[in-house]
Amino acid sequence: MTGLTELGKRAKAAAVKMTVLSTEEKNRGLRAAAAALTEKSAEIIAANALDMKRAEEKGTSSAMLDRLVLTEKKIVGMAEGLYQVADLPDPIGALIETIERPNGLKIEKRKVPFGVIGIIYESRPNVTADAAALCFKSGNACILRGGSDAIDSNKAITNVLREALKKEGLPEDAIQLIEDTSHESVNELMRMREYVDLLIPRGGAGLIRNVVENSKVPVIETGVGNCHIFVDASADIKMAVEIIVNAKTQRMGVCNAAESLVIHKDAAEKALPEINKALSEKGITLHGDPECMDILKAGNVVPASEEDYGREYLGPEISVKIVDTLDDAIAHVNRYTTHHSEAIVTRDEENAERFLREIDAACVYVNASTRFTDGFEFGFGAEIGISTQKFHARGPMGLEALTSYKFEIRGTGQVRA
Amino acid sequence: MTGLTELGKRAKAAAVKMTVLSTEEKNRGLRAAAAALTEKSAEIIAANALDMKRAEEKGTSSAMLDRLVLTEKKIVGMAEGLYQVADLPDPIGALIETIERPNGLKIEKRKVPFGVIGIIYESRPNVTADAAALCFKSGNACILRGGSDAIDSNKAITNVLREALKKEGLPEDAIQLIEDTSHESVNELMRMREYVDLLIPRGGAGLIRNVVENSKVPVIETGVGNCHIFVDASADIKMAVEIIVNAKTQRMGVCNAAESLVIHKDAAEKALPEINKALSEKGITLHGDPECMDILKAGNVVPASEEDYGREYLGPEISVKIVDTLDDAIAHVNRYTTHHSEAIVTRDEENAERFLREIDAACVYVNASTRFTDGFEFGFGAEIGISTQKFHARGPMGLEALTSYKFEIRGTGQVRA
Repeated sequence: MTGLTELGKRAKAAAVKMTVLSTEEKNRGLRAAAAALTEKSAEIIAANALDMKRAEEKGTSSAMLDRLVLTEKKIVGMAEGLYQVADLPDPIGALIETIERPNGLKIEKRKVPFGVIGIIYESRPNVTADAAALCFKSGNACILRGGSDAIDSNKAITNVLREALKKEGLPEDAIQLIEDTSHESVNELMRMREYVDLLIPRGGAGLIRNVVENSKVPVIETGVGNCHIFVDASADIKMAVEIIVNAKTQRMGVCNAAESLVIHKDAAEKALPEINKALSEKGITLHGDPECMDILKAGNVVPASEEDYGREYLGPEISVKIVDTLDDAIAHVNRYTTHHSEAIVTRDEENAERFLREIDAACVYVNASTRFTDGFEFGFGAEIGISTQKFHARGPMGLEALTSYKFEIRGTGQVRA
Repeated sequence: MTGLTELGKRAKAAAVKMTVLSTEEKNRGLRAAAAALTEKSAEIIAANALDMKRAEEKGTSSAMLDRLVLTEKKIVGMAEGLYQVADLPDPIGALIETIERPNGLKIEKRKVPFGVIGIIYESRPNVTADAAALCFKSGNACILRGGSDAIDSNKAITNVLREALKKEGLPEDAIQLIEDTSHESVNELMRMREYVDLLIPRGGAGLIRNVVENSKVPVIETGVGNCHIFVDASADIKMAVEIIVNAKTQRMGVCNAAESLVIHKDAAEKALPEINKALSEKGITLHGDPECMDILKAGNVVPASEEDYGREYLGPEISVKIVDTLDDAIAHVNRYTTHHSEAIVTRDEENAERFLREIDAACVYVNASTRFTDGFEFGFGAEIGISTQKFHARGPMGLEALTSYKFEIRGTGQVRA
């Protein structure tokens, strides 16, 4: 028996205890954990210094160091996150549906926790507190597998959270950290069907692909976003430019940023030069098809290759495709979509409805920026990730996405005829 | 490019067409398909005769031949099933939730089809029509992979269904049959992430385990049921006996039949002899723990081995465990459960609520037989299987379980600040 099996058993046992905790008990635990984080910030910052030292010695980029470093202010932010989760409504126990059968059976379909949720993530140590809090509030035990870069910070944060739960008489084993940051520990976690009910990978495309392709435990696929904006023939060009500039440039390294423009040929002559001008001012390079190259005489524009249409640039580039019809636009988007967020800019209601209906993505927008695909922007009050799959949870995932359901059937001795 | 990739592409293309079909169009297709089945019953029976001949030559058991054979009456039953599915409410497009944001964005969460659903099943050819109809009504294309025993019947049924759809101008490629019944075709189907959105295995434990463990496509695990009945200290003994006899003997080869008894020690002296007597009359052998063996002097009872508690007998046997407390009963059930259906017989409301809350199963019963875990008994009007997992769908699965959702967001030019 390896260490991970032991840890899985403890998490599973804690998950059973979690099923009987009241909302008040869970909130008390979250608030105690939040208070402990600020009280013990010096301890956490000291542990983080070890991570920072190793990272600096490795020559880590300043952008990465910025994500890794923990300050007093960042820890207060983490604690605030926990207080916010405590304030959110508790999804557990909620009645989804009641069925009364002619034989007198009363069937209630109620929300229940999954049990044990594994989270595999990369360097930012604040994910540790954030993910643990969301799992705890939704009645789940969690097994956290953070990256090696942040391991000392993650250990310190987890210890503080666990101690706070223990002091409150709550199951501290509901929060577990895998301290072994080798690849083997991820491989083992992905095989632990007996102890883990669900795995959520959070991070880059490589991490997610590895988990989706190799896990024996059910996975919620998150993250990759090759998001399109389709400018329809009837689009308000000014609105289209504003939406495109926002979706492409408001924050470029995120999954809900636009990566591709699709433009109806009847709008292209007028819209493209304006879009090109606005994007050029923000330093964005267009990768255009031959029709686009014909129209644009200036600006940062280069010919697109076939691969450009499948690319999540996460940087100052965008692909452009001119299409003849709405059907062609829908076919193009459905071919290259990563099922995350897609938008149409149009004044034609019928076209809007067709786009909404036929595009196969978690979030489909009419006349708005794809940047809104986010648990906070949707009003969920929290987010554990954005699901790009159709199975179980789709789009921004708050507490609800961390629950399953159970049928509770109350009878008076009914037997089947 | 293999044949299966071609078939996957056609199914995916049909799935897009399915998203714009109205309820009326889908129902028209189902009714035309039902009518065609009875009209062409001679053709189907002739094809079935080929399967029957091969099966008889192989020395197939009469029970299996009985499952395989198609008669005029069985085909009328299949057609009736299709008419019933046409009469069920259409889940697609239903509004799950509406969110209005302060910035004016209107977010609608709506039910949508998965796209392409693969069904892997064993010998009964009526599954072909049944599964195709449920997928069609829920707006999905399906790829059917039935067993080799029924391949000629399956081809004939699928041809009839497809022709009927084609005549109605509906996408016949929404129903696809894999004619290659080698293991390799299952392996390939399990790798077709690009064209298949969901796989549902229907059949024995071996088939299900193979799919769950090896599929790269998301799977809904169905079927295995090691179902327990817990007789609490306060149980009405007469009710307990009736429920146990029903759950164990009303139909023995099914997943919702009881396979294990757990009895509180304070009820055991009185209840066990009565249970034993009633089960003995039905030819059931008890596998008892030492306490059970002490109490029972007569009847079909043998000592239980550790493995007995993990066994899905699907036959005239049942394991028995005497426990000291409700906690012990819950721990025992949670240790050996296959997360299908579990029941408590009790007059103590608090114990009932604890059992409902703490047992980790799709369906938890108070004072009723586990045999009710069934889409028809739950009033769903149809069933594609019983999910024993927590992910996406749990318990009996009707049309709803074959849907995902999509966020539709309507704006007036909103961009993110």
